[in-house]
Amino acid sequence: MRPTGKLHLGNYMGALHNWVRLQHEYECYFFVADLHALTSDYADTSQVKQNTLDVALDFLAAGLDPEQCTVFVQSHVKPHFELPQLLAMITPLGWLERVPTYKEQQENLTTKDLSTYGFLGYPLMMASDILLYQADFVPVGQDQVVHVEFTREVARRFNQFYKAEGSGPRAQGAEILPEPQVLLTPSPKLPGTDGRKMSKSYGNTILLSDPEEVLRQKIRPMVTDPARIRRKDPGDPDKCPVGDLHKVFSSQETLAKVYDGCKTAGIGCIECKGWAADAIVTLLAPIQERRAKYEQNPALVREILHEGDRRARARAEQTMQEVRPAMGLTEDLTGGAAPGEATQ
Amino acid sequence: MRPTGKLHLGNYMGALHNWVRLQHEYECYFFVADLHALTSDYADTSQVKQNTLDVALDFLAAGLDPEQCTVFVQSHVKPHFELPQLLAMITPLGWLERVPTYKEQQENLTTKDLSTYGFLGYPLMMASDILLYQADFVPVGQDQVVHVEFTREVARRFNQFYKAEGSGPRAQGAEILPEPQVLLTPSPKLPGTDGRKMSKSYGNTILLSDPEEVLRQKIRPMVTDPARIRRKDPGDPDKCPVGDLHKVFSSQETLAKVYDGCKTAGIGCIECKGWAADAIVTLLAPIQERRAKYEQNPALVREILHEGDRRARARAEQTMQEVRPAMGLTEDLTGGAAPGEATQ
Repeated sequence: MRPTGKLHLGNYMGALHNWVRLQHEYECYFFVADLHALTSDYADTSQVKQNTLDVALDFLAAGLDPEQCTVFVQSHVKPHFELPQLLAMITPLGWLERVPTYKEQQENLTTKDLSTYGFLGYPLMMASDILLYQADFVPVGQDQVVHVEFTREVARRFNQFYKAEGSGPRAQGAEILPEPQVLLTPSPKLPGTDGRKMSKSYGNTILLSDPEEVLRQKIRPMVTDPARIRRKDPGDPDKCPVGDLHKVFSSQETLAKVYDGCKTAGIGCIECKGWAADAIVTLLAPIQERRAKYEQNPALVREILHEGDRRARARAEQTMQEVRPAMGLTEDLTGGAAPGEATQ
Repeated sequence: MRPTGKLHLGNYMGALHNWVRLQHEYECYFFVADLHALTSDYADTSQVKQNTLDVALDFLAAGLDPEQCTVFVQSHVKPHFELPQLLAMITPLGWLERVPTYKEQQENLTTKDLSTYGFLGYPLMMASDILLYQADFVPVGQDQVVHVEFTREVARRFNQFYKAEGSGPRAQGAEILPEPQVLLTPSPKLPGTDGRKMSKSYGNTILLSDPEEVLRQKIRPMVTDPARIRRKDPGDPDKCPVGDLHKVFSSQETLAKVYDGCKTAGIGCIECKGWAADAIVTLLAPIQERRAKYEQNPALVREILHEGDRRARARAEQTMQEVRPAMGLTEDLTGGAAPGEATQ
């Protein structure tokens, strides 16, 4: 996840929420992608450090358990620099130029100059992030499927050129980089406070760390079903952003009350928004409790991230120890050669 | 220097010969650029390891003294992967597309597919190779001046965006990456055995490690002044590749004998070639003696390269410790923050 600042409900429901479940089912690696942030935010990096810490805190707050999974910071694990550089050698320029998100992002982020070599290489960095752990699955939303497909193509091309030398866990001649599968993350429709998709760039987010009062203040002025002009007009929760919030966060019982009350004009929008806020407050209470615990103990956070960095580094290094010799790179140049044979 | 195999007289006179002198005048870093080899040779990397070792042996044989300079292997010093990735963020694609050698090489090396992301980034890797040591000077031939100019532009752009945080030797706000100057290496005209420029790709080289007999066999059939058809025809050493060899390798005394003997038809080409071979044999004798010593002692070579890797790594790491925080990357995310302040 890119460190764009404190995480919001959209980040949570679109990814983090599922990760918390996945950590019990798979050996998981989750990282704060600080290098990815630099691809677009290179001109002002003043927030990168704080944003990285905030995302790490939100990971832990949301329930990623350092005993169950590995949480780390991308730039702290140096193979995240090494593998992209090596994969760059075999990656056709055209593949990168044709990644659909490349042109899209350049057109959308018009305030930033994204015609850089680093931004073009963004999907290759993502591919390395995955392949470095010889991952079987990548939990992503529909919009990221194209990047996993790109990763599979890079892995395939690597495997065509290079095979295991037999020095690592894989037998000589075996494929080194497995092609990862997509683990499609269900991502419910989540409106922001202005009714559009919740997104930091729209400024319409509810943060995981918003205190109850802030959260209620954000929900109170939300737009509702535009057909329900007066209190006595009936409304339709299926045409109302607040209805969408209920569908994601409220109990079946509350949801029934919402449908009934709205369609009969039995409840007002203010009351209905209050119930939505209640549901979100309930969801966020344990998350905020955990965040407070970690915020008050920076030494513990440091310890957790250092341990995560260490574990990720060890796993990534295991992959690199197969990748390097397969590409003709080796630490011990003279190894194995008898005296006088070194240059035969 | 790229590891393309055992070095030849062209490599020696064009670079290595000067490096041996420079090591006594400057703090020098010389490395075997195994990553650069991958930019064009990715499809067959079977020779990279042996070529890397051969170039390292030729470095030492030519007289690079591990007590006087640092000799290392590029891929062994991980910041050579890290800095290019970071500089990529700020490097406009157009800058790379416009480097003259990019199109040239693509047109020349038609047997290899060079339309890769890695090959496009080649000048950026070179820039990092230089900037990583905060180098003041780069000893290059005329053909490489354009790459040093590119390096200067990248450094300038970096310094516009980022300043020292004051955590390293540079004061807060100081420039981190100095713009390197070219130290133009005099490169005499050196013909290969077919009269064209000596180059591995022409198959016309005399290797530093060629035994005397091989060397004499290569020189014997060399073309000479085409106007000197018969033994009794006078010739002109200025129109003769063997004359060019004399100018580079022979003593003033021999050179005088060559001019006189050739222009008066007093000597034959065979005799003249013998003198050229003599001069080269004399030059190569101590080089080959040193090479034999190192070849017979792989443990010593390993030791020298490991020590070189270690020294280069320490120097490069010093630069990275200024580059990383300047770009918003830091190992200790929670550092300096008092409890409760971590996310303010």
